[in-house]
Amino acid sequence: MVSIMKISELSQQTGASVATIKYYLREGLVPVGERSAPNQATYGEAHVRRIHMIRALTDVGGLSVAETRRVLEAVESDLPLARAFEIAQSTVSEHVDPESLDAEALATVDAAILGWGCEDDDPGRLAAARVVMNFRQAGQGIATRWFARYAEAAQLVAEADLDLVESRTDLAAQAETVVVGTVLGDALFAALRRSAQAASTIRRYGDSARE
Amino acid sequence: MVSIMKISELSQQTGASVATIKYYLREGLVPVGERSAPNQATYGEAHVRRIHMIRALTDVGGLSVAETRRVLEAVESDLPLARAFEIAQSTVSEHVDPESLDAEALATVDAAILGWGCEDDDPGRLAAARVVMNFRQAGQGIATRWFARYAEAAQLVAEADLDLVESRTDLAAQAETVVVGTVLGDALFAALRRSAQAASTIRRYGDSARE
Repeated sequence: MVSIMKISELSQQTGASVATIKYYLREGLVPVGERSAPNQATYGEAHVRRIHMIRALTDVGGLSVAETRRVLEAVESDLPLARAFEIAQSTVSEHVDPESLDAEALATVDAAILGWGCEDDDPGRLAAARVVMNFRQAGQGIATRWFARYAEAAQLVAEADLDLVESRTDLAAQAETVVVGTVLGDALFAALRRSAQAASTIRRYGDSARE
Repeated sequence: MVSIMKISELSQQTGASVATIKYYLREGLVPVGERSAPNQATYGEAHVRRIHMIRALTDVGGLSVAETRRVLEAVESDLPLARAFEIAQSTVSEHVDPESLDAEALATVDAAILGWGCEDDDPGRLAAARVVMNFRQAGQGIATRWFARYAEAAQLVAEADLDLVESRTDLAAQAETVVVGTVLGDALFAALRRSAQAASTIRRYGDSARE
C-alpha cells in the first residue's frame, strides 16, 4: 500500500506541526514532496519515517537541527559502515578533550577494554575516562570488578547492535539502523538498567527493601 | 589528613567558581562551612566531594538544581536502599505517561523482561516501551533476539551496580553510590558501548571498514 498525503495529513500522522514540517523541508532534513499543483505537494511513507527519525534524534538524542542534518547526510552518502558509525557516534557523543584527562583514569579504562584494539583517540575511550574522573571526584572509588562487568555488558550490546545492522538488506537501511540505534540504544539500555536494578533489589532484599 | 580551606581554595580545588559555591550554599545543596571569623567560614574534604557530586548530577546527568536537591535529600535521609534507588531513578529518568504507550510496545518489553517481576508502573518498563515506539516510528523494526541481549546485558550491569553499592560500608555511602552511579553509570555504559562497537566493527570487517 502506497499512501499519498498532503502536508496536513503528514502532520496528523507524525504528530509534527505543519510549521515544523515546513521548517524541516526548508532546512533540507526532509526531502521535498512530489509537486501535485503549483502550490501543493504530496508526501509518502518515506516522509513519515524520516520525520519520526528526526524526532528521535532531536527529542531522545538531544541533537540540534545542525547535528541532525550532519547525521542524516551520513546516512544518505554511500559511506562504509564503520565511517557511518563514527559520524553517528561523534555527533551524538560529547567531545572530550584528551588534555583534560589524567593518566590514572585512562589506565582504569584501558585495563577494562584491554584487547579491544581501540585507537588512543577512540571517542568512547576518552568519554569513559572522563566519567571515571567524575566518579573519583565525587568521592566514589571505582571497583575493577564492577568496571569489568560494564565492559563485558557493553560488548554483548555492541555485538547485538552489529547483528541488527547486518540484518538490514541494503546499505541505506543499515546506515539508518546505525544512526537510530546509536541514539535510541542508549535510551533503551538506560531504561532496562533501571528495571533490572529494581528487579535485582527486590530479589536480593525482598519487598521489605521498599519500606 | 584533614584539609581545611577557605571558600577561594574550595573553588580552586573543585573548579567551581566562588559565586557558584555561594549559590549552592544559599540553595542548601552544600552544607555551610565552620565559621572561623564573623565573615569567614572554612570548608573540608566533604565539601569538595559534595561539589563534585553536584557537578556530576547537573553536568553529566543534566539535572536541574531543584532535582539535584531532591536527590541529595534522599541521600541524607535514612531511606532504605530500594527507596533511594527509586528516588534517584525517578529524578534522573524522563517521566513517561502510560497512556501514551501502545499495547504492542509494552508487550515487546514484557517479553524481554519476563520473570523480572517488575511492577506495571515500573519507570524503566515504561521508558523502554517509549523507546520501542520511537524505533518503530522511525521505520526500524526491533528484532526479538536483539532486544533480549540488551535485557541480558542490563541484568549484568544491574547486578554489578548492586554489588558496588553493597561494598560501601555505611548507609549514607551506599545512598551516595546509588545516586552517583545511577547518573554516571548511564554515561559510562554509553561510552563503553561506543568503544565496543568500534572494536567489533574492525574485528568483523577489518580496517577496510573505515575506508
